[in-house]
Amino acid sequence: MKILLIGGHGTIGKRVAAALAERHDLTIAGRSSGDVRVDLASVASIDAMFQQLGPIDACICTAGTGYYGDFHTMSQQHLMGGIEGKLLGQVNLVLIGKRYLTTGGSFTLTSGIAAEHPARNGACVAMLNGAINSFVLAAAQELKEDQRINVVSPGLVEDSRERYGALFPGYNLVPMGKVVNAYLLSVEGAVNGRILKVYS
Amino acid sequence: MKILLIGGHGTIGKRVAAALAERHDLTIAGRSSGDVRVDLASVASIDAMFQQLGPIDACICTAGTGYYGDFHTMSQQHLMGGIEGKLLGQVNLVLIGKRYLTTGGSFTLTSGIAAEHPARNGACVAMLNGAINSFVLAAAQELKEDQRINVVSPGLVEDSRERYGALFPGYNLVPMGKVVNAYLLSVEGAVNGRILKVYS
Repeated sequence: MKILLIGGHGTIGKRVAAALAERHDLTIAGRSSGDVRVDLASVASIDAMFQQLGPIDACICTAGTGYYGDFHTMSQQHLMGGIEGKLLGQVNLVLIGKRYLTTGGSFTLTSGIAAEHPARNGACVAMLNGAINSFVLAAAQELKEDQRINVVSPGLVEDSRERYGALFPGYNLVPMGKVVNAYLLSVEGAVNGRILKVYS
Repeated sequence: MKILLIGGHGTIGKRVAAALAERHDLTIAGRSSGDVRVDLASVASIDAMFQQLGPIDACICTAGTGYYGDFHTMSQQHLMGGIEGKLLGQVNLVLIGKRYLTTGGSFTLTSGIAAEHPARNGACVAMLNGAINSFVLAAAQELKEDQRINVVSPGLVEDSRERYGALFPGYNLVPMGKVVNAYLLSVEGAVNGRILKVYS
């Protein structure tokens, strides 16, 4: 398969990339690195990326972040980066990318455990993740030509323990292999319209 | 209680208003009608509304809509109205309104069944509803002074059958009394951080 992976140099993305590169033609896109550059917050940039690549068999997004911070000083301006990047960025990957996805191709987006089990300071990320999950349920009903879409919702992954562990007391560490498997299930399996929760 | 109801002249809002007006001091806010005018898409307008009203014991929002339409011609510009109004409008009601909410007061937002069971053409609304649900789960953990927050997620309500029934084949009609009860449970009960699903 010709696979486009946006965010392939991130914590999760590089593990997914390693697993896929063995047996697929993999293109990595990123904001500041990768084979192709893309700014998820820009419709024009997403459009240009797909035009450059031509037809693809799978589009995976492991990129996108959202604001973590004190709820009581949080305002709309803290929310907009995540809405434009992680949320609308991933939505636009689907709305634009479906024209470039082959028959039988798949999208795999990324949300996160905060949609159901938000940590303190995580209201923005919870909101973004809940939005992505529900969008995927709807999009799966609408895609044509046997195209599929799923979303991986990871918990606190092992490789983020040092960087983020202190922000998530009581969250089980998720083995990287399990997270990677969820992406493989979506890309190489037959599942559709699924929120693939990998919480422990 | 002194209760602020945004959207109190809408299909659901007017039923909620009728039930609350019997025993509470009710102020209705709306974009084009009501005791107070508010534009949910404007932080300044929300701010002005709360400043005008002073302390309140409950804030209910039954206002806010999102785009319904063909998935294959949908673009980011179709999504923005709902993001700015139904989503960020309700989020801002909480972020701004919590400073005006009394100790023990409550917020009650509105999402909808599309978060879990989207109909055809409903990807935008699904996304908005999923976002609101997850935001409420997070916000409930953060509010102080015994403040509570819940969200009512109604299905296709009886009073919308003529207007919207054809868009939701196979969806059970929800009795208005059950929907109203969910708002009463949130405002007058003790529940917190709940997605109050009223699907049938």
